[in-house]
Amino acid sequence: MVERRTPISISAAVNKVMENKLAGQMEWVPLEESQHRFLAQDITATHDVPHFNRSPYDGYALRSIDTVEGSVHSPLTFEVVEALAAGMVSTIPVQQNQAVRIMTGAQMPAGCDAVIMLELTKESEVDGKKYISFKRSLKEGENVSFQGEDARHGDILVKKGTNINPGIIGLLATFGYAEVPVAAKPVVGLFATGSELLDAHEPLQPGKIRNSNSHAISAQIHRAGGEVRYYGKLKDEFEASYAAISKALEEVDLLITTGGVSVGDFDLLPDVYQKLGADVLFNKVAMRPGSVTTVAVYQNKFLFGLSGNPSACYVGFELFARPIIRAMLFSEQPHLRKETARLAKDVLKPNPFTRLLRTRFYYEAGQLKVTPSGVDKSNITTSLAGANSLTILPGGTRNFHTGDIVEILLLEDQEGCGWPW
Amino acid sequence: MVERRTPISISAAVNKVMENKLAGQMEWVPLEESQHRFLAQDITATHDVPHFNRSPYDGYALRSIDTVEGSVHSPLTFEVVEALAAGMVSTIPVQQNQAVRIMTGAQMPAGCDAVIMLELTKESEVDGKKYISFKRSLKEGENVSFQGEDARHGDILVKKGTNINPGIIGLLATFGYAEVPVAAKPVVGLFATGSELLDAHEPLQPGKIRNSNSHAISAQIHRAGGEVRYYGKLKDEFEASYAAISKALEEVDLLITTGGVSVGDFDLLPDVYQKLGADVLFNKVAMRPGSVTTVAVYQNKFLFGLSGNPSACYVGFELFARPIIRAMLFSEQPHLRKETARLAKDVLKPNPFTRLLRTRFYYEAGQLKVTPSGVDKSNITTSLAGANSLTILPGGTRNFHTGDIVEILLLEDQEGCGWPW
Repeated sequence: MVERRTPISISAAVNKVMENKLAGQMEWVPLEESQHRFLAQDITATHDVPHFNRSPYDGYALRSIDTVEGSVHSPLTFEVVEALAAGMVSTIPVQQNQAVRIMTGAQMPAGCDAVIMLELTKESEVDGKKYISFKRSLKEGENVSFQGEDARHGDILVKKGTNINPGIIGLLATFGYAEVPVAAKPVVGLFATGSELLDAHEPLQPGKIRNSNSHAISAQIHRAGGEVRYYGKLKDEFEASYAAISKALEEVDLLITTGGVSVGDFDLLPDVYQKLGADVLFNKVAMRPGSVTTVAVYQNKFLFGLSGNPSACYVGFELFARPIIRAMLFSEQPHLRKETARLAKDVLKPNPFTRLLRTRFYYEAGQLKVTPSGVDKSNITTSLAGANSLTILPGGTRNFHTGDIVEILLLEDQEGCGWPW
Repeated sequence: MVERRTPISISAAVNKVMENKLAGQMEWVPLEESQHRFLAQDITATHDVPHFNRSPYDGYALRSIDTVEGSVHSPLTFEVVEALAAGMVSTIPVQQNQAVRIMTGAQMPAGCDAVIMLELTKESEVDGKKYISFKRSLKEGENVSFQGEDARHGDILVKKGTNINPGIIGLLATFGYAEVPVAAKPVVGLFATGSELLDAHEPLQPGKIRNSNSHAISAQIHRAGGEVRYYGKLKDEFEASYAAISKALEEVDLLITTGGVSVGDFDLLPDVYQKLGADVLFNKVAMRPGSVTTVAVYQNKFLFGLSGNPSACYVGFELFARPIIRAMLFSEQPHLRKETARLAKDVLKPNPFTRLLRTRFYYEAGQLKVTPSGVDKSNITTSLAGANSLTILPGGTRNFHTGDIVEILLLEDQEGCGWPW
């Protein structure tokens, strides 16, 4: 008997998933391990930057008032009373017509309010005393970086939910975050199903194929920011599958299965959901590939029943599991980033269903263009390797032509998108 | 005495660096550890995909010749002689008006050349025998995925030097790459210089700042694909610095120092290069920030003397060290990806030097736009946190206005750019 399923739209399916989204947790990690993690708190300036007035150049600090008469025709001479490397603090009060040799980044000596750049000065020595001369005047504050001009104590610098990049790491170091508050990685359990599946190291056998989905999905989970727990292959046997899934659910936030959700005689997942008493949010989505994608919720955990077909599996994860993971990472933009692009190639086979084409976007004179990354059959793995985007083609009878404006979802982007798209 | 240095253009500097680029090495890593690594060989299909004719649907395999008469007015009936899950191989030769129940992905039974989808059939049972009936004819090859239609044995699927994404991982699994040939990570040594530097965990002190460069550069090295060896802080003492650098050079491919390359009294690096007998490729670049960036080559290793200023350090790494690392990772596009974008904000302070503005690009109706990510002073760390690009503003007397077309370098991109830009 063929089970009748009612397909729902992609956006209805995303809504149902997000209505059940899970709360994220915070943990502290050493700064060195924080790259690519997601901030669990806003990062604020723990002090002014700079936290003292300092010289942005190598030169001489002095009192601008002593330079008023300086010009090409009227050179000035200053006695050099001290030399300050960055990190040193002046010890000698600066008097009229005195200067302090100052290195880039060093704190301005008390009393000084301007810096003349080294290149503009001439040095000399008389009776063991050092002097400089130069031919110009300086304004108050000239060549001084003032306390707080970059950031003020208490400023919010980076928002919670942001992916930590090298610039943010520099900022965290500046403000003394030797430990960083980040979102704990959601734990995502993973089962493969299908007796046709060989492991990557096994030689091919007639009628069998190697399991690529578990590897691709693991990489997708990492990319989304989650941690993978791979439980291996489910047996094609109901009780064993039910027991394995029940046990795994105790250890994870999300549980993904690949395969076994369709209407084939060996598709056991629907019965497993039923016996668990899981709330099936949907079991058919009006899209290609991935129409059999099933999502269920059970005791505040997610069950994602993805298709066994590599492309459908990939797309189902990105549309429905990724935003749950990113929401747990405190992202306010947990969905795939959506942009518009111009088709660089005709897509001439109409399809009644909304399609998610595996595509490659690129730029041409600052304009987003997009082209299919391979032959568009849902069983085709190779096009996924070259895809950096999914292009949404609305269902219907129309063809799509070069130059048409289409919506694309960026796969490698870390900024994401809010909802609705 | 101020040393006089001759600035060279950015592109001349990049050329000099790349003329000395280093060869990469290959190593094998388990498939599970290959994400984000760079392929050291082209990946070819080790077999056809599919490697047998298979059914893309749940349904019944049969001989199309037996369906010629089928239509809405002329239903056909077939005896079901076997059921094949994916992974199973048929055992019974199919005769006239016989069919085989076949699950998605299963190998086509010998003699069958078409599949009728489950949804289009009606099942029945008579005397313990199973039958199906349906009301249409099928063409030869209908609903069959043919051997090799996705990829042919020997096809080159992914090129050497490509960053391994989830789609490629799926592909590697499909073709049995349980171990993957990847580029060995270039080993990048790192010293900080400057007695003003505190560690991230230390409380602030007058005149001192925390060391942010070592952390940011470490993250940049990771992003570029290298491995970091952090040697800590160089003392402000020549012989100790010389000894530490000489020793580190034996253990790394590239050695980066931050600070100490300018004309300040405590800038020891130029003397270290001289004593080593290193070939200084340049020690001044006509750009802001990062003009003091120095690159030297010694015994087939690179010495990068980056500025101690956070933004200058960041930019110097991305322009000159990143392409060396990516070239060692077999990338044919080792440079930062360059695109054009429209300015979304005026930049009204002209500068005689080529500037690399820290910017944020985004899309507006499929068009790249770019806006400064913070106040543009070279000592400003906070703007780096929000930057996803550097915008190249040519030096001169002109202002730049909203809507002007500018060149941008993408910082988070994995595809890169060839040369010249």
